[in-house]
Amino acid sequence: MKILVINPNLTQAVTDAVAAVARRFAASGTEIVAVTGEFGPQVIGSRAENAIAHHGVLDLAARHHAGCGAVVLGVSLDTGLLALRELLPIPVVGMTEAGLFGAALVATKIGVLTFGARMVPAYEELVKSLGFADRVVGVDRVELPPTATFSDPQAVRRLSLEACARLVGGQGAEAIVMAGAAMAGLNETLQGEVPVPLVDGVACAVPLAEMLVRLGLPKPTAGSLAHPGARSVRGLSPELAALFRAKP
Amino acid sequence: MKILVINPNLTQAVTDAVAAVARRFAASGTEIVAVTGEFGPQVIGSRAENAIAHHGVLDLAARHHAGCGAVVLGVSLDTGLLALRELLPIPVVGMTEAGLFGAALVATKIGVLTFGARMVPAYEELVKSLGFADRVVGVDRVELPPTATFSDPQAVRRLSLEACARLVGGQGAEAIVMAGAAMAGLNETLQGEVPVPLVDGVACAVPLAEMLVRLGLPKPTAGSLAHPGARSVRGLSPELAALFRAKP
Amino acid sequence: MKILVINPNLTQAVTDAVAAVARRFAASGTEIVAVTGEFGPQVIGSRAENAIAHHGVLDLAARHHAGCGAVVLGVSLDTGLLALRELLPIPVVGMTEAGLFGAALVATKIGVLTFGARMVPAYEELVKSLGFADRVVGVDRVELPPTATFSDPQAVRRLSLEACARLVGGQGAEAIVMAGAAMAGLNETLQGEVPVPLVDGVACAVPLAEMLVRLGLPKPTAGSLAHPGARSVRGLSPELAALFRAKP
Amino acid sequence: MKILVINPNLTQAVTDAVAAVARRFAASGTEIVAVTGEFGPQVIGSRAENAIAHHGVLDLAARHHAGCGAVVLGVSLDTGLLALRELLPIPVVGMTEAGLFGAALVATKIGVLTFGARMVPAYEELVKSLGFADRVVGVDRVELPPTATFSDPQAVRRLSLEACARLVGGQGAEAIVMAGAAMAGLNETLQGEVPVPLVDGVACAVPLAEMLVRLGLPKPTAGSLAHPGARSVRGLSPELAALFRAKP
Amino acid sequence: MKILVINPNLTQAVTDAVAAVARRFAASGTEIVAVTGEFGPQVIGSRAENAIAHHGVLDLAARHHAGCGAVVLGVSLDTGLLALRELLPIPVVGMTEAGLFGAALVATKIGVLTFGARMVPAYEELVKSLGFADRVVGVDRVELPPTATFSDPQAVRRLSLEACARLVGGQGAEAIVMAGAAMAGLNETLQGEVPVPLVDGVACAVPLAEMLVRLGLPKPTAGSLAHPGARSVRGLSPELAALFRAKP
Amino acid sequence: MKILVINPNLTQAVTDAVAAVARRFAASGTEIVAVTGEFGPQVIGSRAENAIAHHGVLDLAARHHAGCGAVVLGVSLDTGLLALRELLPIPVVGMTEAGLFGAALVATKIGVLTFGARMVPAYEELVKSLGFADRVVGVDRVELPPTATFSDPQAVRRLSLEACARLVGGQGAEAIVMAGAAMAGLNETLQGEVPVPLVDGVACAVPLAEMLVRLGLPKPTAGSLAHPGARSVRGLSPELAALFRAKP
Repeated sequence: MKILVINPNLTQAVTDAVAAVARRFAASGTEIVAVTGEFGPQVIGSRAENAIAHHGVLDLAARHHAGCGAVVLGVSLDTGLLALRELLPIPVVGMTEAGLFGAALVATKIGVLTFGARMVPAYEELVKSLGFADRVVGVDRVELPPTATFSDPQAVRRLSLEACARLVGGQGAEAIVMAGAAMAGLNETLQGEVPVPLVDGVACAVPLAEMLVRLGLPKPTAGSLAHPGARSVRGLSPELAALFRAKP
Repeated sequence: MKILVINPNLTQAVTDAVAAVARRFAASGTEIVAVTGEFGPQVIGSRAENAIAHHGVLDLAARHHAGCGAVVLGVSLDTGLLALRELLPIPVVGMTEAGLFGAALVATKIGVLTFGARMVPAYEELVKSLGFADRVVGVDRVELPPTATFSDPQAVRRLSLEACARLVGGQGAEAIVMAGAAMAGLNETLQGEVPVPLVDGVACAVPLAEMLVRLGLPKPTAGSLAHPGARSVRGLSPELAALFRAKP
Repeated sequence: MKILVINPNLTQAVTDAVAAVARRFAASGTEIVAVTGEFGPQVIGSRAENAIAHHGVLDLAARHHAGCGAVVLGVSLDTGLLALRELLPIPVVGMTEAGLFGAALVATKIGVLTFGARMVPAYEELVKSLGFADRVVGVDRVELPPTATFSDPQAVRRLSLEACARLVGGQGAEAIVMAGAAMAGLNETLQGEVPVPLVDGVACAVPLAEMLVRLGLPKPTAGSLAHPGARSVRGLSPELAALFRAKP
Repeated sequence: MKILVINPNLTQAVTDAVAAVARRFAASGTEIVAVTGEFGPQVIGSRAENAIAHHGVLDLAARHHAGCGAVVLGVSLDTGLLALRELLPIPVVGMTEAGLFGAALVATKIGVLTFGARMVPAYEELVKSLGFADRVVGVDRVELPPTATFSDPQAVRRLSLEACARLVGGQGAEAIVMAGAAMAGLNETLQGEVPVPLVDGVACAVPLAEMLVRLGLPKPTAGSLAHPGARSVRGLSPELAALFRAKP
Repeated sequence: MKILVINPNLTQAVTDAVAAVARRFAASGTEIVAVTGEFGPQVIGSRAENAIAHHGVLDLAARHHAGCGAVVLGVSLDTGLLALRELLPIPVVGMTEAGLFGAALVATKIGVLTFGARMVPAYEELVKSLGFADRVVGVDRVELPPTATFSDPQAVRRLSLEACARLVGGQGAEAIVMAGAAMAGLNETLQGEVPVPLVDGVACAVPLAEMLVRLGLPKPTAGSLAHPGARSVRGLSPELAALFRAKP
Repeated sequence: MKILVINPNLTQAVTDAVAAVARRFAASGTEIVAVTGEFGPQVIGSRAENAIAHHGVLDLAARHHAGCGAVVLGVSLDTGLLALRELLPIPVVGMTEAGLFGAALVATKIGVLTFGARMVPAYEELVKSLGFADRVVGVDRVELPPTATFSDPQAVRRLSLEACARLVGGQGAEAIVMAGAAMAGLNETLQGEVPVPLVDGVACAVPLAEMLVRLGLPKPTAGSLAHPGARSVRGLSPELAALFRAKP
C-alpha cells in the first residue's frame, strides 16, 4: 500500500525529515510517497501563510493521490484536513491530530510544543477544533523559527527541554506532542531527559492511516464529509478541478 | 471613507446583493467597493470550496484594499477572517461574526439560518471558533441551494419561515442570524412573520467596520494578529506577495 | 438622535468622564444625554452595591429615556442590562459588553482590566454570562479604588501598565478591555506603551447603539426580552411603574 | 435557632406556602421567620421585576436578620444571593441552589421545572451561574402564571406532569427541581406519578442552612464574599445603610 | 437514626479520624457506625488501588447497611458513589462531593487540597465528573503521604498552609475543600491562618445525609440510579450478591 | 507479538465474539489472547456491576499479561482503563476509547450506540471522561439486553437501524461507534443500510495497540500514569498483589 505524505510548504528539507519518520513507523509493505508544495509559503509561520496553504494542500492531494490508499498531512496545523476528508475517496490523517490521539492513549493531560509564540493561538484553536481542549493543558513553544531545527539544533534542544519542563512540572502534562513538521524525529533525541512520553505526530499518523485502510470503512454519503457532488469551479489545476466534477 | 466588500466566490449576483445591503446600512460618507472572486468556486457549498476560497479572499484583499479604511467579508463562512486581520493594516469584519454580534445585542439565545444540511457543521464550527457556542442554540437550514434565492424565492421564503419557527419555538432563539451571502436582505421580507429580530450579517458588518475606523485602535505588534514580518512566499500574485514582504 | 448614558452610581465625576468619551466617539448628529444615580452607592465596589444599583439603573432609565433612540450603560458591570433590554422599547448596550465586542473584532484572546481584586470574580461572572468565557483569557486588576483615577493618576497608570504586561505576556491577551467606568479614556494615555489594542467600553458602546438604531430591528414579541406585558408593582417611582403598565 | 426566610415579592400567600414547607423540614428547635416584600413586584415574572427585587431582598435582610442564624431565599431566582452572602455576617442559602444540590445528591442528570416560557432563559442563566450547567439537562415549564397554583391547581398538576414526563423521558432527568416559590409543596402531590424524585428547593434550603450553622465556618476575609468594608451609600433604609457602614 | 461511614482502605486510624469528625457534626440522635476495608489497599494512593476499592466499598456497604438510614463515604475519591446510589435502598453521600457542596454554599471559586501530586489528576477528574469544574479553580497538594497526618503533623501543617496560600492568592479560591480522609479535622487547626473557610468533607456529608433522610425522597424507578433489577453475579460475598438479586 | 484481550464479565460468548473481531483486524504476526472474567457480573448492565468489574479487570490483567506486548479492553465501558495504564508496564487500549478515536478520524460529529436506556448516562460519562464530549452528539440505544445479540439478532438489527437513523438524521452524527462488547461485528451487517461509517471499537483497538507497540514510547515516570511504586495491599490474588510490589 502507498501512503501519500503532503507537505504544502516549499521546503524540501522538511518534507525529507517528515518522510524519514513516516518510513520508520510504516508497516513493512507500506510505501511512503512524499510531496512538497509548489506555491505559497516557504515555511508556514503565520495565519495568512496557512490560509494560502489550504489551496496548496488540495492541489497536491489532487495531483498525487491516485494509487494511494491514504493521505497523511505533513504540516503541523493539519491544514485542509476536513476539506480533504470531504473531497478524497481515501482516508486522510493530520499529523497533529494523530499526535494528540497517540498522546491520549498514554496520558490523561497532554502538552503541545511548537515553534514561536505567535503561532501558539493557532495551535490552541486547532486543538479546540479537534475537540481536544479538555485533554490539552497547554501549548508551549521554542522561541525560534522552525528552520532552527536544521541551523541551530543545540538551541532547539535546550529550549525544547525547558518548555517540556514547564509543561510537565507546571501544567501537569503526562505526554507532549511535538507540533511542527520540522520537529519530525526531535522527540527521540530529547526523550531521555523528559519523564513523560514525547509523541511525534507523523510517527502516529502513518499507523493510523494504515488502520483506516485495514478497517475499510465506507466513504459517508451523508454529513459534511460526504463528497459534495458536482460543483462548478474555475481557475484551478485540472486535477483539482476534476475532484469537483463528480463523486468518485 | 471606503469599505472593501469581498465576495470570494465567482457569482456576481451574490456580490451585487451583498453590496446593496452594505450600501443601505453604510453611514452617509461611506463608499462601498465590492469585488468578486476570480478563481475557485462559483458558490461555496463544501468544505473544499471554502478551503480554496481562503486563497481567493487573500488575493482579492491584496489587490483591492489600497485606499480603503476597512474590509468586510461578504462570505458567510467568514473565510480567511483571521488571516486578513493579521496581514492587512486595516480592520476586517466578517459578515457572520457581525451578524452574531448584532444578534447578541438584542437577544440572549441566538439561532443561525443557512442553506443546506451539509454545511450546518461548518457553521457550527465557525460559531465555536468565534467563541459564540454559549450563545447559539442551533444552526438550522433551508434545504435548497443558495442560488434558489434568485431562482425560487417563494420556496426559500416558505422554508425559511419553517426553520425560523423551529429555532424560536423549539430552541428558544431570541434572534436569528441569516448566514448566507445570498440571503442578503432576505431578513426584511420575512421579518413581519417572525416574532424575534432577523439579523443580516452584512447590515451589521458595515457599521462595525465604521466603528473600528472611528476607534482608531493601533495594529497590534504582539500576538497572533500582529503582522508576521517579512516572509518568503512563491507563486502568488504580486499584490499578495507584497503583503508578505514587510510590515506596513 | 439622542443616546441616554446611565451611570447608576452617585459620582458626577464618573458620569462626566463617561460622557466625554461618549461624545468623542458619537457620530456627528448624535447627542449624548448623561444621567447620574440618585440613590444607592457612591461608587460600586461590591456585589451588594451592584445589586442595589439594579433598581437605580431601571429608575434612571424610566425617567430619562423618553425621546432617546438608545441607552448606553455607563457602569462597567453592565448592571441591569437584560432587564432594561426587556422593559424598554429602545436598544440598550452595556459598556463592558461593548468593549468585549470591540476587542473581539481585533483580537483572538482578550484580557480585561479592572480595579481591585475583590471585584475580579464579578467581572469573570459577567464575562461568562455574556458568553465570552471562551475568548477572555484573564481578568486582572489595578489594586486601587476606582477613585484613584482622579486622585492618583500616576499610580493608576503604573499599575495598569504592569497588569497589561501580565495579561499580554502571561496570558496571551491580544487586546485588553478597560472595565471600569472611572477608567473612561485611560486607554489612550496607556496605549503607547502596550503592544496590543486597549479598548474603551464606552467608546464602543456608542457606535454599537447607533448601529442598532440604524438597523431598526423590531422589539421581539417572544422570548425573555419581549416586554412582559402589564405587571403589578408597588412602591416604585411613577415613571418606573409606568413601564410595567403595558407594552409600549 | 431562627432562620429568616425572605420572599421579596409582595404576595403573602407565597410567603405562607414557603414558610409552611420550611417549617415542615426544619429540625426541631429551628424557628422559621418569614417576611414578605414591601416594594417592587407582586410576583416576579420578568427580568425587570427580578432586578428591582435585588434591592428588596437586601432591604428585607437588613431589617430582619438580627437574631437569626441564617437566611433562606424564598424566591426561586435566588435573587441577591451573592450580594447577601457578601454583606451579611450569617450564612445565606438560595432555594433553587438548594434544590439543585439536593437533586445532585440523588441523581446524575437534573431537570428543572418552572412557570412560563419567558422565564426559562433566566433559570438557565441561574443554573449556569451556579456552575450546574453540566448537571442540568433541561429547564421545562408549566405554561401558566405562578398564581395558578392557588387559582387552578388541577391545571398546574396536569401540565406539571406533562413537563415531568418530557424531562424524564426526553431529556433523561433523574430528579426534577421545582423552581418556583409558588410551587412550594407541589412536589408531594405529584410524586406518586413521576418515577424520579421531585425536589423542593425550600425543603432542602432549610437543612442546608442548619448545616452551615452547625459547621460554624468563619466569614471569609478575602475574596468577593468578604464584607466590602465601609462603603458610602445614600437613599437606602437606615438598616440597609448600616450594613455598609463597617464590618460586622 | 444510624449512618454508616465506609472507609474502604485498611487503615483503622483513618476510619477513627473520619468517625470522630462524623460524630462531632452529627445531629443529636444520629449514631455513626464506621467500618474499615478488609481487602485491597492499606491507603489509596494510586488509580489502581482506587479501582480495587470499588469492590471493597460495595462489599462493606452490602454487609453493614442493614438498619442504617444513610451511607457516608469516608474515602476522598468518593469511590463507588454512583454504584452505591444505584444499588442501595438508602441515600449515599460522598465526602468530597459533600465538601464541594458545603464550599459552594459559602464561596464562588473553590480550591481543593489533597496529598501528593500524582493524585491531583484523579481529583480533577472527580471534580469534573461531579459537574463542579466550573466552580473549582485548582487542586493543590501537600507533597507528603496521607499517613504523614499522623507521623509528621507539623510538616503537614506547614505545607498545607503554603498550598492554601497558593490557592487563595494565586487562584482566587474563596473556600478550600480538604480532600483526604486522613485530613479529617485538619481544617480546624489551620483555619486561624487562612482567610477563607476550610471545609471538611465528612463534616458536611453527615448533615447532608441527615437532610436526605429527612426529605424522604423516593428511590427512582427510572434512570441510571434505579435499582438494576435481578442480575446474575458470581464469586461475591453473599451479602453483596444478595443486593443483585431483586429490587429492595 | 501477543495482545491480551480482557473481557471482565463471565460470558464466554462475548469473549469469543470480541476475540474474533480482534483477530480479523490484527496484523499478520499479531496473536490475540482472550480471557474471560472469573468473578463478578455475568454481563455488565449496571453501575454496580461495572464497579466490581474494576477489580476483575485488574486481576485478569495481572494474571495474563506476562509475555504480551499490549492489552485491549474487551468491555465497552473501558472498565479500569486508567488503573491498568498506571499499573502495567505495557500499553493498554480501551475498546470504546478506540472506537471514538477511529470515528473521529472519519467524522466530525460522532454518535454512540449501546444497549439499554439505563446505561446511556454511564456511556455519556465515559465520553466526557475521555474528553470527547465536544465530538459526541448523542448516545442512543437499542432497548434490549446485550444478550439479545445472540438470542434475537433480528430485533437487534431492526432497533439498531432505527437508532442509527435517529443519530444521523436527528443529531447529525457522521459516524457511529458501536459501544457494547456483545455488538462486536454487528457493524458489518448493518453498514449497508446506514449512510455513515459504523465503527467497531475492538476493530480499532487492536491496530491502536499495535501502533503503541511500534512507537515504543517509554512508560512515564511522572504524572498519574507512572507506576505508583511499592504499595501495601491485602487480600488480592498473588499476581495482582505482585504488581503493587515494585516498579517493573
